[in-house]
Amino acid sequence: MKQNLQIVKIGGKIMNDDEQLNKLLADFASLKGLKILVHGGGNQATNLANRLGIPIQMVDGRRITDKDNLEVVVMVYAGLLNKLLVSKLQGLNENALGLSGADLNLIKATRRIHPEIDFGEVGDFTAEDINVRELNNLLKSRITPVFCSVTHDGQGNLFNTNADTIASTLAMSLTRYFNVHLTYCFEYKGVLSDINDPESWIESLSLKEYQVMKENGSVSDGMLPKLDNAFNVLKQNVSSVKIKNAQYLNSYTGTHLQLDKSIN
Amino acid sequence: MKQNLQIVKIGGKIMNDDEQLNKLLADFASLKGLKILVHGGGNQATNLANRLGIPIQMVDGRRITDKDNLEVVVMVYAGLLNKLLVSKLQGLNENALGLSGADLNLIKATRRIHPEIDFGEVGDFTAEDINVRELNNLLKSRITPVFCSVTHDGQGNLFNTNADTIASTLAMSLTRYFNVHLTYCFEYKGVLSDINDPESWIESLSLKEYQVMKENGSVSDGMLPKLDNAFNVLKQNVSSVKIKNAQYLNSYTGTHLQLDKSIN
Repeated sequence: MKQNLQIVKIGGKIMNDDEQLNKLLADFASLKGLKILVHGGGNQATNLANRLGIPIQMVDGRRITDKDNLEVVVMVYAGLLNKLLVSKLQGLNENALGLSGADLNLIKATRRIHPEIDFGEVGDFTAEDINVRELNNLLKSRITPVFCSVTHDGQGNLFNTNADTIASTLAMSLTRYFNVHLTYCFEYKGVLSDINDPESWIESLSLKEYQVMKENGSVSDGMLPKLDNAFNVLKQNVSSVKIKNAQYLNSYTGTHLQLDKSIN
Repeated sequence: MKQNLQIVKIGGKIMNDDEQLNKLLADFASLKGLKILVHGGGNQATNLANRLGIPIQMVDGRRITDKDNLEVVVMVYAGLLNKLLVSKLQGLNENALGLSGADLNLIKATRRIHPEIDFGEVGDFTAEDINVRELNNLLKSRITPVFCSVTHDGQGNLFNTNADTIASTLAMSLTRYFNVHLTYCFEYKGVLSDINDPESWIESLSLKEYQVMKENGSVSDGMLPKLDNAFNVLKQNVSSVKIKNAQYLNSYTGTHLQLDKSIN
């Protein structure tokens, strides 16, 4: 029998609000069994870059990570935010260990090659690039990994990496050892049936229903990549994928994604 | 039979010079057996504070760590420098894991109470505050801990902590499991018999000889606390204590400290 493993991904914004963050972490600590926390921090990285007068370049909503911005990202993600989370979780008796992909060679990425855009120090990777053996050892020792979204190439270079991708790829790679439950936290109570009504969150969304919503245009641009990615994860033996508000991690709210097994 | 454990402490300055740092890390990686790296970074923290316009306050050569400076310290030590070292060591096939004292609750400190000076977010601790069981587990798993000089209080608060103290206290606490060999790296080739001659380093320095040098005034002010601390460590069952230049970690240079067993 495989054990359950909860992977929770949180964004950067919640870490700007101490009260909200404390509630989230208390909820996370109260989750039963093995767990992993994955965090972003784009918000705080932008803030530090601005304070340092380092220009931020975005192409199609994606950040170009030059050397200066990589330093900012490493300081904010692996330093400031990661240790904030680890120390707070330790205060909740959660045996947290802060990690980047470089630590224990947990996530080995390759520099992104794109025909037109140089994304800079950005790394891509797949489930095969995750050191699941070492990660399994940590989890078996009742350690709670706290991942920031920094990876490395195994040759001394660090990369900025998307935190959603880290969460989903960790989830897929760890199905070998665990029943993996993945939760993406975001600012709404769940996927909304009406973009203009924050209370219109739906409990369950099947792939078929999602495709209809996409055709209707009732999914916001920001949600499209998140949901496409989330449904892809669900196809890879991950036991459940939920999209929830970070303030309601332990409540009934949130959207449970479902594949449409009946229609195959 | 206890295994040997090498603990090497490096300062921040060497991390400003990529060539010197690469040589040091290659030397460190080539050390046989179990090891721990401890690093400072005051240099780089000062630099970032200056860039951010955050005032730095020193009292008697010691840094006052207000909240803003703590953020700087956590970003630089636990983020920028720690992950630089970890990724470079991984590139040398060393299974490095970056750690603060908050991670795995490895070093639990208490906020410094001083009758006259408020040092701010600075933590003090003793060998009993080190989670040696967890640290021993990591070392037994052939993991190489890379410690930055940040600790926590177990209640969600981080502290700035002296890196020399972390190295020496780790050394003392780990004598329970290992034959511990501690090396402090600094800018000279060893303790100098003549402060004005950088080539006058001595191979061996006994406590008695050191006391004579202190009386003569032939020990510089900067070396006094370092050497006092180093001799204290030697009294606590640490197998050897050396003071070396970071560029000569694997060479015969450096000063080997010795207790004067014959005079007891």
